[in-house]
Amino acid sequence: MEKRTDLAVEARELAGADVQGVEYSEKTENGMNISRLKVKNHQASIKLKKEKGTYITIDVPAMTDNFLSSDDRIKTISEEIKRLLPVNGLVLVCGLGNIEITPDALGPKTVSRILATRHIKGEIARSTGLDNLRPVAVLSPGVTGQTGIETFEYIDSIIKKVRPTALVVIDALASRRLSRLGCTLQISDTGISPGAGVQNHRRKITADSVGIPVIALGVPTVVDAVTLVSDLLDVDDEKTSSELREMLSPDNRKMVVTPKEIDLLIDRASRLVSLALNAALHNDVDVNLIEALL
Amino acid sequence: MEKRTDLAVEARELAGADVQGVEYSEKTENGMNISRLKVKNHQASIKLKKEKGTYITIDVPAMTDNFLSSDDRIKTISEEIKRLLPVNGLVLVCGLGNIEITPDALGPKTVSRILATRHIKGEIARSTGLDNLRPVAVLSPGVTGQTGIETFEYIDSIIKKVRPTALVVIDALASRRLSRLGCTLQISDTGISPGAGVQNHRRKITADSVGIPVIALGVPTVVDAVTLVSDLLDVDDEKTSSELREMLSPDNRKMVVTPKEIDLLIDRASRLVSLALNAALHNDVDVNLIEALL
Amino acid sequence: MEKRTDLAVEARELAGADVQGVEYSEKTENGMNISRLKVKNHQASIKLKKEKGTYITIDVPAMTDNFLSSDDRIKTISEEIKRLLPVNGLVLVCGLGNIEITPDALGPKTVSRILATRHIKGEIARSTGLDNLRPVAVLSPGVTGQTGIETFEYIDSIIKKVRPTALVVIDALASRRLSRLGCTLQISDTGISPGAGVQNHRRKITADSVGIPVIALGVPTVVDAVTLVSDLLDVDDEKTSSELREMLSPDNRKMVVTPKEIDLLIDRASRLVSLALNAALHNDVDVNLIEALL
Amino acid sequence: MEKRTDLAVEARELAGADVQGVEYSEKTENGMNISRLKVKNHQASIKLKKEKGTYITIDVPAMTDNFLSSDDRIKTISEEIKRLLPVNGLVLVCGLGNIEITPDALGPKTVSRILATRHIKGEIARSTGLDNLRPVAVLSPGVTGQTGIETFEYIDSIIKKVRPTALVVIDALASRRLSRLGCTLQISDTGISPGAGVQNHRRKITADSVGIPVIALGVPTVVDAVTLVSDLLDVDDEKTSSELREMLSPDNRKMVVTPKEIDLLIDRASRLVSLALNAALHNDVDVNLIEALL
Repeated sequence: MEKRTDLAVEARELAGADVQGVEYSEKTENGMNISRLKVKNHQASIKLKKEKGTYITIDVPAMTDNFLSSDDRIKTISEEIKRLLPVNGLVLVCGLGNIEITPDALGPKTVSRILATRHIKGEIARSTGLDNLRPVAVLSPGVTGQTGIETFEYIDSIIKKVRPTALVVIDALASRRLSRLGCTLQISDTGISPGAGVQNHRRKITADSVGIPVIALGVPTVVDAVTLVSDLLDVDDEKTSSELREMLSPDNRKMVVTPKEIDLLIDRASRLVSLALNAALHNDVDVNLIEALL
Repeated sequence: MEKRTDLAVEARELAGADVQGVEYSEKTENGMNISRLKVKNHQASIKLKKEKGTYITIDVPAMTDNFLSSDDRIKTISEEIKRLLPVNGLVLVCGLGNIEITPDALGPKTVSRILATRHIKGEIARSTGLDNLRPVAVLSPGVTGQTGIETFEYIDSIIKKVRPTALVVIDALASRRLSRLGCTLQISDTGISPGAGVQNHRRKITADSVGIPVIALGVPTVVDAVTLVSDLLDVDDEKTSSELREMLSPDNRKMVVTPKEIDLLIDRASRLVSLALNAALHNDVDVNLIEALL
Repeated sequence: MEKRTDLAVEARELAGADVQGVEYSEKTENGMNISRLKVKNHQASIKLKKEKGTYITIDVPAMTDNFLSSDDRIKTISEEIKRLLPVNGLVLVCGLGNIEITPDALGPKTVSRILATRHIKGEIARSTGLDNLRPVAVLSPGVTGQTGIETFEYIDSIIKKVRPTALVVIDALASRRLSRLGCTLQISDTGISPGAGVQNHRRKITADSVGIPVIALGVPTVVDAVTLVSDLLDVDDEKTSSELREMLSPDNRKMVVTPKEIDLLIDRASRLVSLALNAALHNDVDVNLIEALL
Repeated sequence: MEKRTDLAVEARELAGADVQGVEYSEKTENGMNISRLKVKNHQASIKLKKEKGTYITIDVPAMTDNFLSSDDRIKTISEEIKRLLPVNGLVLVCGLGNIEITPDALGPKTVSRILATRHIKGEIARSTGLDNLRPVAVLSPGVTGQTGIETFEYIDSIIKKVRPTALVVIDALASRRLSRLGCTLQISDTGISPGAGVQNHRRKITADSVGIPVIALGVPTVVDAVTLVSDLLDVDDEKTSSELREMLSPDNRKMVVTPKEIDLLIDRASRLVSLALNAALHNDVDVNLIEALL
């Protein structure tokens, strides 16, 4: 029985702290624990089952609370995102997932609060005071089951048309620990890999595949039921394992563990991520102004 | 660690099949397994932790499928409900739960598809062909946290005003087995007890407390994470148990196990229950016509 | 062809400024025009087709803008509401209208943002710092077509149970002028009368009918198409009038004029009214705290 | 004051029935009036302000009713659509408009009910009995104000990637007559032009601009307030006209006339269009099966 996690810090917990080629450090800022994990080479990547690159993990103490847009922690988070963005140029922001499936709706809900500015030009931009905003385009590609189009194909075709300098993808993640649900933000420069996310994408969306830097933002919204139980039980016996699997995935329906108030988790996490990302994209602009423009 | 279930058939599984004062039978109709469980006396009620009365449980083979309104199984289910309803007189239908919390939204979503007819009278009723419909009133009392009003108080005050002959309450339930989520309908004549439902009501809504027969319809939408794990592990050791509890309910946030597609489960279950209940209430009327009137 | 309006200031415009028994004054505060109109006797009430009582009308300059909760104008509006509320005791807040019909959704949307506190008592209230909040209960009675229960019956039965000292009703209104849509708040101590509101209630909800003071808050969200055209044309000829009526209400379907962005109007108006009402109800509490509690 | 309409039949009414280069015929099928209007040359196009091509207009007698999927009229409508589609090959279906603005939501709501099949291939297609379905991809490009991407750019980039044989665009329209709101379906082979639709697109989406046949489906959901009044008044005087314009578009906010139950109109129209379009795309497949697959 596999233990599934989209969080690099949990992959490190499972693989052990002493894997060669993994760099790890922690700091505390504005009351939040921030860790930085670097997967430096191919072997480390294999061991952790994570792409090479940097993973920043921020433990937001109370994501179930309503953040005020003026919260200092927003500033701290936005700084971490900003460091991965190019200084100038168009940024394409993509919310992955299915807005109709609550635990998978983080991406689309977040991008519905991102200020798109690419189309605001010339006189209008000047007269509305928006002429110093960075150009931003926003995409909600939906899911392949509803569009018939692979997420990679979709994003790639828009990239070829609008030519951004960077892509930001936002996705709901699966973690291994219930205590991290809604309380952890992972920021990485590695893109999205097959099997990641609540939705399980099929093709990589990475700098290699799309030709520009890809920054991935994710918040865990579920723990796989199979992973939760595997973590608690020592299941070596193959027979037990297959019985368990049938119990935990009856008729192959995938079961997940979430807070009962999953809708609230999604609302608040998407609000937090959008506040921080808007601030990172439009860094000299008052967040209140951005919220008022949406 | 408690094993929580709102299903009488699961309470019987836990208590053992030979409890005195419990009557149990099964039949199959239209491909659905239908069981009838009677809690006949106080001792049986204590042992099963279920109110005295009758619990009918229908295993709907494929509730994740889209039912057509013409499906014969709808007819079978509606017959089971009809048997518990008085032959004549106003019925008040109440959807319990919070429409904004997906796993708890079954009640409000179902009643939004129930045809209210109490206000259609005289000439209008005759001219629209609705003069032979049974009078029905529909209520969505919301949750105490949002209204400041206890569910019992709310329902009781409306009952005192509109004087129905029976109350039907619809609620999302917690079960013990993942395989029953969205696939089981429990129909009982016992009302709703404290601690039942996803939302956990505080005061009984029963024939005793409201003064008229109460028919409860429920579909399990979640398994408590604590119940799931308790069922798999033998946890006697108190220390382990409290560690587990913290792991499974971090910061006292209640965690539940659901299908990832919980929104779909709620949609389809509420459609099924409303089709069957509309047919039971208005028994000579074509379901298609009722759907068209909504 | 009748010229329909729920705004007392417009009724006065139509009846002429010199009707006996009508008192009218204006002031400006925080950049908002605030008028006070008193219908003092029966004759004035007949002439204006408005109940006896006081009507305060606030012209909010830019209700299509996003208000910040800290806006001084919120304070001004909340003071006007507070003056009509009893100093102490439970207040019942009622959102009238149909949440599924956008122009009629102001009431239900507003009350979904009102902080209910009646159920928070004793130790919990003290530990959460909520022990000095006024008791508030919140109701969304829906519409008769969906519940089978008259709005008056519904509210009256809850009043008899929870015994509030005052009732606040919130409703979407019809005005005569397009320029007032979403930009005007009418506050009155007269309750709601038959034919008022987008939904057209059938029975009065007034101090007389429910036995406690009734404060009505309303924002115009539509202009009747018939009223708009009547205002522009001089239609005396009966034949023209009936042709016009068929053109403007084909097959008796009621047509309304609204901003294309009616959803935005409803969102922002309900946010404004809820901010002001929360502040009026819980007058020493920070609006930001209240928003965070919702 | 301009009289705006997106319906070719209304453009003909305004231009007069005897314009050279306009062919017009009517028939009745299954109780529905179906007209066929051909704009044959450049002069006719200028006079009617409509692109050259064929416009089919179907007067659905009761679009406010709930259609059953088995209704014969669905079949009739689907035949009219099918005649414009290529016999084989991928079809891209695009829902234009803003799902958050009710009168503009027809496009996105309709495509959420279109069965996408392009991704279902090989063994899976065979085992689910879907191997004889036509490949269909579905797009909801949102609106430029929220994405920063022009609708034309968006669609064109996806077309270059997935290479369909035809594009179907669905859009909410403005008509001149209130009696046509929700009761008329326009099907054309001319694509979408600037200024059309509730949302007012900026660049043509036509066979010329995207390189493949474009079939446009639209239902009128609003009448411009300015158009309604212009139609009723004879306004030649420039002064009156500018006063009227300020009255009808205060602060340049665009006002529209709709049925009060605009949400219902959108729901039912999108259901009708999706039923007919699914049947046209997958012509030998039972509509009930398609609905069950969605």
